Amino acid sequence: MSHNSFGHLFRVTTWGESHGPAIGCVVDGCPPGIPLTEADIQPALDRRRPGQSRFTTQRREADQVRILSGTFEGVTTGTPIALEIQNTDQRSKDYGDIAQRYRPGHADLTYDLKYGIRDYRGGGRSSARETACRVAAGEVARKILGAGITIRAALVRIGPHGIDRSRWDWSQIEANPFFCPDPVAAEQWAVYLDEIRKRGSSVGAVVEVIAEGVPAGLGAPLYGKLDSDLAAALMSINAVKGVEIGDGFDAATLTGEDNADEILAAPNEAGGPHIFGSNHAGGILGGISSGQPVVARFAVKPTSSILIPRRSVGRDGQPVEVITKGRHDPCVGIRAVPVGEAMVACVLADHLLRDRAQNGPR
Amino acid sequence: MSHNSFGHLFRVTTWGESHGPAIGCVVDGCPPGIPLTEADIQPALDRRRPGQSRFTTQRREADQVRILSGTFEGVTTGTPIALEIQNTDQRSKDYGDIAQRYRPGHADLTYDLKYGIRDYRGGGRSSARETACRVAAGEVARKILGAGITIRAALVRIGPHGIDRSRWDWSQIEANPFFCPDPVAAEQWAVYLDEIRKRGSSVGAVVEVIAEGVPAGLGAPLYGKLDSDLAAALMSINAVKGVEIGDGFDAATLTGEDNADEILAAPNEAGGPHIFGSNHAGGILGGISSGQPVVARFAVKPTSSILIPRRSVGRDGQPVEVITKGRHDPCVGIRAVPVGEAMVACVLADHLLRDRAQNGPR
Amino acid sequence: MSHNSFGHLFRVTTWGESHGPAIGCVVDGCPPGIPLTEADIQPALDRRRPGQSRFTTQRREADQVRILSGTFEGVTTGTPIALEIQNTDQRSKDYGDIAQRYRPGHADLTYDLKYGIRDYRGGGRSSARETACRVAAGEVARKILGAGITIRAALVRIGPHGIDRSRWDWSQIEANPFFCPDPVAAEQWAVYLDEIRKRGSSVGAVVEVIAEGVPAGLGAPLYGKLDSDLAAALMSINAVKGVEIGDGFDAATLTGEDNADEILAAPNEAGGPHIFGSNHAGGILGGISSGQPVVARFAVKPTSSILIPRRSVGRDGQPVEVITKGRHDPCVGIRAVPVGEAMVACVLADHLLRDRAQNGPR
Amino acid sequence: MSHNSFGHLFRVTTWGESHGPAIGCVVDGCPPGIPLTEADIQPALDRRRPGQSRFTTQRREADQVRILSGTFEGVTTGTPIALEIQNTDQRSKDYGDIAQRYRPGHADLTYDLKYGIRDYRGGGRSSARETACRVAAGEVARKILGAGITIRAALVRIGPHGIDRSRWDWSQIEANPFFCPDPVAAEQWAVYLDEIRKRGSSVGAVVEVIAEGVPAGLGAPLYGKLDSDLAAALMSINAVKGVEIGDGFDAATLTGEDNADEILAAPNEAGGPHIFGSNHAGGILGGISSGQPVVARFAVKPTSSILIPRRSVGRDGQPVEVITKGRHDPCVGIRAVPVGEAMVACVLADHLLRDRAQNGPR
Repeated sequence: MSHNSFGHLFRVTTWGESHGPAIGCVVDGCPPGIPLTEADIQPALDRRRPGQSRFTTQRREADQVRILSGTFEGVTTGTPIALEIQNTDQRSKDYGDIAQRYRPGHADLTYDLKYGIRDYRGGGRSSARETACRVAAGEVARKILGAGITIRAALVRIGPHGIDRSRWDWSQIEANPFFCPDPVAAEQWAVYLDEIRKRGSSVGAVVEVIAEGVPAGLGAPLYGKLDSDLAAALMSINAVKGVEIGDGFDAATLTGEDNADEILAAPNEAGGPHIFGSNHAGGILGGISSGQPVVARFAVKPTSSILIPRRSVGRDGQPVEVITKGRHDPCVGIRAVPVGEAMVACVLADHLLRDRAQNGPR
Repeated sequence: MSHNSFGHLFRVTTWGESHGPAIGCVVDGCPPGIPLTEADIQPALDRRRPGQSRFTTQRREADQVRILSGTFEGVTTGTPIALEIQNTDQRSKDYGDIAQRYRPGHADLTYDLKYGIRDYRGGGRSSARETACRVAAGEVARKILGAGITIRAALVRIGPHGIDRSRWDWSQIEANPFFCPDPVAAEQWAVYLDEIRKRGSSVGAVVEVIAEGVPAGLGAPLYGKLDSDLAAALMSINAVKGVEIGDGFDAATLTGEDNADEILAAPNEAGGPHIFGSNHAGGILGGISSGQPVVARFAVKPTSSILIPRRSVGRDGQPVEVITKGRHDPCVGIRAVPVGEAMVACVLADHLLRDRAQNGPR
Repeated sequence: MSHNSFGHLFRVTTWGESHGPAIGCVVDGCPPGIPLTEADIQPALDRRRPGQSRFTTQRREADQVRILSGTFEGVTTGTPIALEIQNTDQRSKDYGDIAQRYRPGHADLTYDLKYGIRDYRGGGRSSARETACRVAAGEVARKILGAGITIRAALVRIGPHGIDRSRWDWSQIEANPFFCPDPVAAEQWAVYLDEIRKRGSSVGAVVEVIAEGVPAGLGAPLYGKLDSDLAAALMSINAVKGVEIGDGFDAATLTGEDNADEILAAPNEAGGPHIFGSNHAGGILGGISSGQPVVARFAVKPTSSILIPRRSVGRDGQPVEVITKGRHDPCVGIRAVPVGEAMVACVLADHLLRDRAQNGPR
Repeated sequence: MSHNSFGHLFRVTTWGESHGPAIGCVVDGCPPGIPLTEADIQPALDRRRPGQSRFTTQRREADQVRILSGTFEGVTTGTPIALEIQNTDQRSKDYGDIAQRYRPGHADLTYDLKYGIRDYRGGGRSSARETACRVAAGEVARKILGAGITIRAALVRIGPHGIDRSRWDWSQIEANPFFCPDPVAAEQWAVYLDEIRKRGSSVGAVVEVIAEGVPAGLGAPLYGKLDSDLAAALMSINAVKGVEIGDGFDAATLTGEDNADEILAAPNEAGGPHIFGSNHAGGILGGISSGQPVVARFAVKPTSSILIPRRSVGRDGQPVEVITKGRHDPCVGIRAVPVGEAMVACVLADHLLRDRAQNGPR
């Protein structure tokens, strides 16, 4: 086990703090013979990178990834792939405030309670900056999954404002600063989030990830379930407080006949998957993929670093009022969209290898 | 790794099918010197046991647990604890129907797609019967946690009917057949579920688990997070489709100032935990317990075995209509209540040991 | 991790004490669709079973294995396979002596030092009885490996008496009570071991395991090495104090030109393996199988339970003299022969699955 | 699991190839609050560094380690520690020969058989260069173990020439280029190895590692045994072909009465360990440390890269003669001495944490 790894056969170990010299990860278990260069990974990092709109933190990081091992002449060799990203924009500001007082809702307190020490600069290990490593690893995972499996995510809620699913248009995702598939909602969000940002507040969000082309048979009873691993992976992202598969919590309100995804036809001769009348299950039955799209959703809480004063205590136990200046995301859920995609990619790649081990190639 | 184990230092491996000779589990990593006999485990199994009201399956199982190893003269020895429960009420009914056709919403299909074979009798490995092993392991976990940590769960929703939290009364939990903390809701549920049951349908539910007395410092960034492991553990329970920590999905709708749990006082001299103004976080910040109650919630979908006909296909690919006769739970979420407690207990025991390894005793 | 499991994708977890009601193991990760019944496992247990000659302990155990899960209609289903063996010949003798004093060279002392408690009856968890579970799991492993891979072991040394390798004859293995491939040595050993046995002593031994038909490509740099896992697996057997691959310690005395296994021909068109001029490497280069026979050797120390008095201390710290009466193996190395085979089978099955996960089928 | 990690609670994942930009490792699970800077690690790397005498490869590497994460103000924080070493002396030589032909006894062949691709420059991932990461991680492990546990290793054999144990003098270890505790043997070895080196040959060696001050109680039955993990760790070092604990293979030749380590006195009031009459067991009984010094030994085969021509085949399957020019160790066993220390330190640190998890602090 490792506190800082995830996956079993496709296994990622991340390291690094917000204001150390670099962050990075080791990706172990990647099959050999897969073309892989920095150029394959960089676009996804660029999508996640902060500072691209007024709605994300203004920290400027190039987020240039380097592959330090595991490839030879542009192809994976089967040995561990080390990925590294330099930290370049650590401002030499005074962190005295954060060092000595605990932001309500932040990990400041629990790190100190657990370890008795913390690297408070920029949030240290608990900074969302670490998610860059997830995104980088996710691109390696996508290479393993191949072109037949597509994993896309979208922001479907900001605070009280959801989307209208009838307007869902994947092509809108890159057309607004929110990864929002509903162009009307995106415009409303811009107004709403400007207000939030200007008064120094923040707000939560919901991200939905959809993986299409996932072959049936990934996952395993009863603790190696695909949905169990997805839940762990998505819940491990900073600020995530809930995870759903398919209908999720809405399934609790349904009857058996309404929740059942009727099976309308067996695979055709070309080997296409079964055809279902609905997808309440989110593509997973009994912990195993059914061939339908895998659908997961996760809730991101509002950033705890805000300009609005909150009551707290200092390291000395004395009451203080906390106002967090600096560069922060008014809605950290936005940048969680590519991170969610990456985590789902990593879980699927892991289960693809796990299934191949036990059951041979599909 | 193992597809059928969970936990790391407190590690449980379960085995068994619904209609095999027995089910069981191996609990590894338990500290030595803890008093443990079958009498410590049996009451929890009795709580989960089916056939105790008309609202659960009428299968009659004694669910008598035997400890086959790992204790000596009534005390744990530090070696693996094997727990075993005989299957006694496997009816010699004809399973021809289930064998040849796939129940919509059930794991029948995906087991066949993955393995090409399945033990269809009573659902085989995917039967909720397996959860007895979780409950048994959970009682061992509670012994490790000690009397200072209490883990209780309640059913807070059946289908469209939630509870009124202002009426929450833990003493009601054992006073109705639903583990419902709201006596008024329990009465409504009885009427509603009778109707569901009589027309051969089923319905979903939501379970809430609250762990009190959890010391601060359990969990770890970034993939060994306490919430990440809770999510995996709860999502691994049969029929679970969603998991929340604290406010969960509601946190997505909040602003930063509303979501922040203000810290009102540092620990007192007796070592009591910090005092907070609220618990939106569900007792976990940055993946680490804060000393507040740990609050988790999970959604259970309706049982897929129903008497109402649904369209499906057979193993031969031909269209069929599926009606599942036999003994089934109209709301499998009811029996998930003790299972949820058990999984939270196992995760906490695991993290207690993991934290002690790295940080010494608390 | 687990203290009582081995393997990763083919993963075995054992449990049980010498004088508890039963011992057993859970075999997880076995591919589905493999014919498997008790009759496939029992012969190997019968080979290991004590009481078959005057050179092993006179404890009489039927060692009848039961499969409690993981198969359906005689075929594996991909779910965990629980194997169980009842303990039937636990003599109701007085263990007061062993309970209160530490046999020199035995685990009595260290169990007490570690756990503060031990099941002293028959050695408890440290009894060689546990190796029955390894043998049972090994037979499942052989099924995965298939008929093309044969794993055989032989005793090549008892105390000061080695074999003459020029007389190596596999057909002799079952023709003497020592699994000795040299019929002349076997006769000498009988005389020697009778003398050892009659004077209440014991003696060490060396076992050699040879796996033929192992495909090239199993294993992985740098910590998932095939030889590293073989070393761990063989060293985990009771009383083992050394492990060698190929020439082992003799390789330390060689020059590079003498140790090099020259490659004389590439694979033929039928896909046969490379042809080598020698096999100093024992079939493993850089942690990866080369296609040559895999050769491992392990040293078993003499049984520490002997009739010859040794000085020790009691639980109370007072000096005592220890004489261990009861039924013991004069050379526990004999029964380690099938155990060594089993452990090698388990490691190879695990690496076969691991390699298939990363590299696809061979 | 991971092919490139070792340890469980003290977990090291290494990455990097001989001629990539850098090598490194991630050390996870280190307790917080331990002073740690590059200056703590560098001396051990300097000991292992090549090019310090004519008896090791003439490759010149500064082997300067950088700590990229996991410490703050010179103290560990409990988060993963990333260590990195730049490769600076990768000669721009033509590797065409190694690329197209397989050195007998080398991993060239098996990497190609497994992965179908290999980074042949300097041996790629199979280069002994990787062991620098082990040494760096080992220094972190020593910090966890504390000053009370000392781990030292010595070369006790080069080819046919052993040491005279009556002359064992630890102070000689740093006084000769062989880490040899016997000054007379060291002089003989210099003459012998010069001859080996000049004729382009190489030779094997045996390393002995002794850990003193190890508390009783580390390790666990039956697969988490201390000796089992030591065997895996030492066998994972490049070119190692055998591992022994205590008397090792010699124990196979002993009788029970000769092998028994008599216990002469219980711990004194100051908590000192038991006193034993001998240490045939090498400090481990039943997989658990006894409080005596832990003694392990491993055999290193001769370097396969030699100037003496050997027969082999090329990638095209055609017969070739192989002569390996370039900078190589005539006895790679010499540099394995600090590597062996490091691996033992890592295993002990891991088991210290594992024991503390289950049994609390000692």
